[in-house]
Amino acid sequence: MSESDDIRPGEIAVEAPPPDDARLRFIGRCVTPFAERKDCPRQGRLDGPECRLEIFAPWGRALDGIEAFETLDVLYWLDRSRRDLVLQSPKSDGGLRGTFSLRSPVRPNPIGLARVRLVRREGDTLVVRGLDCLNGTPLVDIKPDRCAFSVQAPPKAADRC
Amino acid sequence: MSESDDIRPGEIAVEAPPPDDARLRFIGRCVTPFAERKDCPRQGRLDGPECRLEIFAPWGRALDGIEAFETLDVLYWLDRSRRDLVLQSPKSDGGLRGTFSLRSPVRPNPIGLARVRLVRREGDTLVVRGLDCLNGTPLVDIKPDRCAFSVQAPPKAADRC
Repeated sequence: MSESDDIRPGEIAVEAPPPDDARLRFIGRCVTPFAERKDCPRQGRLDGPECRLEIFAPWGRALDGIEAFETLDVLYWLDRSRRDLVLQSPKSDGGLRGTFSLRSPVRPNPIGLARVRLVRREGDTLVVRGLDCLNGTPLVDIKPDRCAFSVQAPPKAADRC
Repeated sequence: MSESDDIRPGEIAVEAPPPDDARLRFIGRCVTPFAERKDCPRQGRLDGPECRLEIFAPWGRALDGIEAFETLDVLYWLDRSRRDLVLQSPKSDGGLRGTFSLRSPVRPNPIGLARVRLVRREGDTLVVRGLDCLNGTPLVDIKPDRCAFSVQAPPKAADRC
């Protein structure tokens, strides 16, 4: 994590204890054509360029069955983002917004969330469209898109209408 | 984290090093009517019961501006889930699926993702519908729903069609 970014006028940083409530293990990495921040789109598009999700051992088999889904939720770790801003000025015009009302990479837990289109699986790698992150961004999780997802387990009482 | 759950026939656990690639700080907690796992729906519904997202200090002001959004993405930490399964049998019938092709709470990084409807803000608390997690589940992040979200910053080259 780097906190080296400049603060824009009006933005408010807070002091918070070091984060240590839970720990992540990276399950892979994103290979994208975006080498620098200025190359990244603000939001990925399902018709964007092909990118790759490379899964590290021992998690490769956890992809089994994923070919059945057209779209996926991808969680990744924005490892270059500062984590201490509560108010941000995304337009740099002095207009302030709370961090949780933005999809900015600057947040207390810098987890990015993209919905991507699955193009194909190649072994332990998924080829997808829709990522917006830097090349090399660490992967945290992959889930089937909730809209496309059919619950596999038997219904429970709380699932009833 | 508890790894005490039984493994079902055919499920495959792996050995992985302790997770320490990145660290989270909990930003609040979910208050839901679901006291035990059996009470939780498989997936939340936008017309489900009212729940509360209580934000801890110093992050309250990070909610500013959130009232403009009807739906939000909520990330939370499934602190009771085992983290070592690559293949799971959600129907307990011997049929196996990879962890990343399921929305099961059992995953290498047990982060749950719910899309919720924002009912109202009450100070540092959001009242929402659509959560499916246990009462007391730690909160990791809140983002405006990407579909409802209008990018606030000026367009960049990579945003063009």
